[in-house]
Amino acid sequence: MMEYTARQIADILNGDLEGDPEIKIKGFSKIEEGKEGTISFIANPKYFKYIHSTKASVVLVSRDFKTENGINTTLIRVNDAYQAFAKLLALQNNNKLNTTGVSSKATIKENAKAGKNVLIDDYVYIGKHAVIGDNVKILPHSYIGDNVTIGQDTILHPGIKIYNNCTIGQNCVIHAGVVIGSDGFGFAPQTNNNYQKIPQIGNVIIEDNVEIGANTCIDRATIGSTIIRKGVKLDNLIQIAHNCEIGENTVIAAQVGIAGSTKIGKECMIGGQSGFVGHLEIADRVKIAAQSGISSSIKKPGQVVQGAPAFEFNRYQKAYVCFRKLPDLYDKLNELEHEIKKIKKETD
Amino acid sequence: MMEYTARQIADILNGDLEGDPEIKIKGFSKIEEGKEGTISFIANPKYFKYIHSTKASVVLVSRDFKTENGINTTLIRVNDAYQAFAKLLALQNNNKLNTTGVSSKATIKENAKAGKNVLIDDYVYIGKHAVIGDNVKILPHSYIGDNVTIGQDTILHPGIKIYNNCTIGQNCVIHAGVVIGSDGFGFAPQTNNNYQKIPQIGNVIIEDNVEIGANTCIDRATIGSTIIRKGVKLDNLIQIAHNCEIGENTVIAAQVGIAGSTKIGKECMIGGQSGFVGHLEIADRVKIAAQSGISSSIKKPGQVVQGAPAFEFNRYQKAYVCFRKLPDLYDKLNELEHEIKKIKKETD
Amino acid sequence: MMEYTARQIADILNGDLEGDPEIKIKGFSKIEEGKEGTISFIANPKYFKYIHSTKASVVLVSRDFKTENGINTTLIRVNDAYQAFAKLLALQNNNKLNTTGVSSKATIKENAKAGKNVLIDDYVYIGKHAVIGDNVKILPHSYIGDNVTIGQDTILHPGIKIYNNCTIGQNCVIHAGVVIGSDGFGFAPQTNNNYQKIPQIGNVIIEDNVEIGANTCIDRATIGSTIIRKGVKLDNLIQIAHNCEIGENTVIAAQVGIAGSTKIGKECMIGGQSGFVGHLEIADRVKIAAQSGISSSIKKPGQVVQGAPAFEFNRYQKAYVCFRKLPDLYDKLNELEHEIKKIKKETD
Repeated sequence: MMEYTARQIADILNGDLEGDPEIKIKGFSKIEEGKEGTISFIANPKYFKYIHSTKASVVLVSRDFKTENGINTTLIRVNDAYQAFAKLLALQNNNKLNTTGVSSKATIKENAKAGKNVLIDDYVYIGKHAVIGDNVKILPHSYIGDNVTIGQDTILHPGIKIYNNCTIGQNCVIHAGVVIGSDGFGFAPQTNNNYQKIPQIGNVIIEDNVEIGANTCIDRATIGSTIIRKGVKLDNLIQIAHNCEIGENTVIAAQVGIAGSTKIGKECMIGGQSGFVGHLEIADRVKIAAQSGISSSIKKPGQVVQGAPAFEFNRYQKAYVCFRKLPDLYDKLNELEHEIKKIKKETD
Repeated sequence: MMEYTARQIADILNGDLEGDPEIKIKGFSKIEEGKEGTISFIANPKYFKYIHSTKASVVLVSRDFKTENGINTTLIRVNDAYQAFAKLLALQNNNKLNTTGVSSKATIKENAKAGKNVLIDDYVYIGKHAVIGDNVKILPHSYIGDNVTIGQDTILHPGIKIYNNCTIGQNCVIHAGVVIGSDGFGFAPQTNNNYQKIPQIGNVIIEDNVEIGANTCIDRATIGSTIIRKGVKLDNLIQIAHNCEIGENTVIAAQVGIAGSTKIGKECMIGGQSGFVGHLEIADRVKIAAQSGISSSIKKPGQVVQGAPAFEFNRYQKAYVCFRKLPDLYDKLNELEHEIKKIKKETD
Repeated sequence: MMEYTARQIADILNGDLEGDPEIKIKGFSKIEEGKEGTISFIANPKYFKYIHSTKASVVLVSRDFKTENGINTTLIRVNDAYQAFAKLLALQNNNKLNTTGVSSKATIKENAKAGKNVLIDDYVYIGKHAVIGDNVKILPHSYIGDNVTIGQDTILHPGIKIYNNCTIGQNCVIHAGVVIGSDGFGFAPQTNNNYQKIPQIGNVIIEDNVEIGANTCIDRATIGSTIIRKGVKLDNLIQIAHNCEIGENTVIAAQVGIAGSTKIGKECMIGGQSGFVGHLEIADRVKIAAQSGISSSIKKPGQVVQGAPAFEFNRYQKAYVCFRKLPDLYDKLNELEHEIKKIKKETD
């Protein structure tokens, strides 16, 4: 990171400075591990307490952040501390991939096409008739099947496997070990108790600006397409089955599993390790607590649910409080039963 | 797809035609997205409603499918609409891998043997003394360890890792990113709170006609073998630990985890994200609802369970209905307590 | 395995022999599948019953193992039967990787360094300025990013992906398909409902003696490091998010998910498929039952919890027993209500 003064950073972020405008910043830190010469931020209230003890020289906070006596660090007030910090990180990101070129150790099959400024690194395999857009970066060991298209500015990290006939949009980031286009899990039971495989002749379509976490799997459709709409963010180790559709800007945390043909709306937020049975429809802006089990469609936009099977969040929370007290409830019930017997005897 | 008439398709499937025998079909569609010139099917009752609105020219239905007025599409009645559709898909599957040959960019170590008509694609590594059967297809980036044997007609999709000494049967399909034969998770606690690794000197045996989904992991046995019996179907991202055995024709959905030495019977159906503790025995034809936790053996063949820990399915369903009403139950209990106090006062 | 007599094995293990000292052993077996000429062990009480039926010629048992009449096998009594068996397995492990050398089919970028006796196998990619310690073994298809360091005696199984700037300690074992250093899942919501990616400029640090199971994912920190402390054992398909820290000698079973910035103490034991929300602190020696959901910090060292959300283990067990009986409880409550009404009528 180049060196900046607090004043320069405040200017970049349109922030208001409280403290020493000349203090110098040459790195980033987490608030609880702040060091002199670094800038940090506080957005989550869990971390407010560190404002007094942090050794970070500058801390980004929101405009309405309440300060009391005894803050030794310089503050820069901004509209959204997390976003502002992200902006600084992006300015300084030295983790970017700047190399381009097509390795002589890569395989490019006949009739495949690559655009300008691409990186196709060692041991990459690109199948027949594949189309690789401008500025695409494909890191080592990735497999791009026949007829796959990859939109411009997309990054494929190492060891990704994209089966034949799938399409990936522009400006996507796909992490190591991701599998796109594996066969859907479809088998027709036979009379002798074994199964006949249902051919999976569809594909997967990933739209623009999608990020897909490491080792996540997205199966191809039986017929038609499994579709990940633009702006979707998928974390690691997620399972998306054949013929699913995930709506625009929906965010899905790690290890979620979605069974076949389920359609999820726009701007949903889905907690880690949740599971969905197949053939459901989930409305827009639905929020699903971690580890929930969704066994029926959710029609109301914006609904918040929890549980397995899931129901309305607040009702779940109340029911679970009662669950924790169930042994007491049992004791009380037995006591009341005893009381009633006594009363009956007395009133006989 | 070649073009067929409805009559030709009815003949192929031994079906009964209702409607226009001359209508032409040149593709497949899902019932809810049916287009003119395509054939679709209805098997799941959830989709019955689409029979009136679909634009598919022909729809496969079961022989007892009830029709009312206003169906504009041609029907073909068959014994099993899903199987019949699968048969058509298989006839038309243009997704098949037809290439063969051994790439000059593959590694084949000394004393490895390959049968007739194999595909060993770029960047494949085949270890010493490995035996690859006739018609086997190994796509790019797969690793086949020393002494591994792979039965004829098996397909290995890209990026599969099979450790030394494992065996794979005939006619299997293994998807991208699968790991077979990684060490079992065995460590003996030491007096200083750390662990000594238990060597895992066994292997994995996959029998014939097994399908394994993307990024699934099957650990080798400590001693002896982890065994996947013939006809088993495993979905994506499943964990099967050391010394497990999965019985014939059992079907396991995505993200299930099975701990060490657990044995599962034949023809079981195991819902997604379920987990099993180690050293259990599960009888044949057991059905386990998604997200269940199996903490003790299930001895009764055909039992259906749910919950974590799991118990009998219908009892679980009833208990969960009560769980949802727990806050009301609490209120009622408090009310009764109050009533009893009043009565006691009055009868004093 | 070379051939040993029971007496020789007893000497190696400092064990006490009961039975035939001259009986010959040339292999290992599981107690329930014991064969003549093999040695087995019993540690788990579930397997005590096999002592009468096993055909293993020698069985390792603990010093206080109770024997009755009718045991036909030779026993060797030791302090810890599982550890003793592990010791024998290690002596005989023929699964070891003995090859060394740098393949001409590997890529080693400029300024990368490798120590003595390394194995860098076919299709391995080693980035710029990477440092590979003595005796390290890197199997085919692994990707080692720029500036990565790998400590001596560490084994990387096939197809591992380690992103730039991460460090791996000495004597680690990392299994196939593991991803280390993928981007943390960080996105700042924007006013138009889509998300801005937060650059992830930190790294991952894996300390010494760590084992990581197949297809597990460990994300890089946003800033700073995601840290896996020495002696940690991770099973397959685990998700560890950005900025987490896992304390020394903690053992985590398969398919666990840990959200961002959560810190787990030393010597914890975490059951399979458990999940943790972000920003928690878990004390040392905490035990977490399988499939639990941890939604708040656990401050008491050694606490044992279960449930989702999790609470104290014994209370959970009791509450769950009541949960199973909930339908009966409902019936009883309704009955009591009826009784009270009757009493009220009578006393009116």
